[in-house]
Amino acid sequence: MIYEFNKLPGIGPKTSEKFVYFLLNQPREEIDNFVRALNDLKEQIQVCTTCYNFSEKTPCVICGDPKRDKTVLCVVSESGDQAAIEKTGQFTGLYHILGGAINQIEGVGPEQLKIKELIGRIAANGIKEVILATNPDMEGETTAIYIAKQLESAEVKVTRLARGLPTGADLEYADEMTLTDALKGRREV
Amino acid sequence: MIYEFNKLPGIGPKTSEKFVYFLLNQPREEIDNFVRALNDLKEQIQVCTTCYNFSEKTPCVICGDPKRDKTVLCVVSESGDQAAIEKTGQFTGLYHILGGAINQIEGVGPEQLKIKELIGRIAANGIKEVILATNPDMEGETTAIYIAKQLESAEVKVTRLARGLPTGADLEYADEMTLTDALKGRREV
Repeated sequence: MIYEFNKLPGIGPKTSEKFVYFLLNQPREEIDNFVRALNDLKEQIQVCTTCYNFSEKTPCVICGDPKRDKTVLCVVSESGDQAAIEKTGQFTGLYHILGGAINQIEGVGPEQLKIKELIGRIAANGIKEVILATNPDMEGETTAIYIAKQLESAEVKVTRLARGLPTGADLEYADEMTLTDALKGRREV
Repeated sequence: MIYEFNKLPGIGPKTSEKFVYFLLNQPREEIDNFVRALNDLKEQIQVCTTCYNFSEKTPCVICGDPKRDKTVLCVVSESGDQAAIEKTGQFTGLYHILGGAINQIEGVGPEQLKIKELIGRIAANGIKEVILATNPDMEGETTAIYIAKQLESAEVKVTRLARGLPTGADLEYADEMTLTDALKGRREV
């Protein structure tokens, strides 16, 4: 069991051991709940065949919601990014989860991501705007540039999340790249 | 001496003591250098009468540089913010240092800042754009809004640094406000 916990991201042998001792001190039914949740995970959670997010059904709750704006598509790398954007309550369109980002060092190319599926989705549906919401790091940028190129001939507006100062930042300690972005992207008030 | 060091920001009695023991182990000439630097500080460093930044002369090197763009003014709270923007090498205009930000809790009002001087500077010179580069926090926002209101009738473009995701950020861990700004400020690629 220590060995199994140890495989989880960010969990070392010490924490893993702590988990095991914790479980040993729990009543049998607690362990049963844990086992049930683990089994349900693979049985009940599937991948939405439209947006490729994890979901209990397909199409997922968002793709199947008639109130969502079907003309705007927000493209993210991972489910966690989708969850973060959804939590803001500011986005009413649909999502597309790529399943990662282009990473030459780790050997992740465009063909391993749901990019072909994205292009197909855009071509087939009346999508007017595609927001490339990949992370503002090297892999995310590479992925965004790659997708933008693929969409050059498509009749769709392609946007990227704003770069600049995060809320609560201190100019004095902001990195030069962020400050440069903040300067270049300044807006009239 | 321990008492004096203790007054410096972020320096407690322990560190202060460490400094004193360090100095006690230095040769006499090292102490003399320290004394000289301290004396020079107040004698040689003055405040530029144009931008209110610390400088060895007035007008300061930037205000006196004929190559700087005299039509754009970047308004910051502190000298450290000015230094951070200058380090990006992306800004070629002039600065205006307010000397703080409006903070009701600490009793800092507009009259304690160089706002009147800023308005005067804008009226007197051919300034076309004022970049309100105060911090993206409550005090900085309050200050920016206050100044923007004062400039409403002035024939000058008023801008604010871009808000959004900083370089290298991870969407999944970005705060909701920053993500909302990034979404709202998205730009076409």
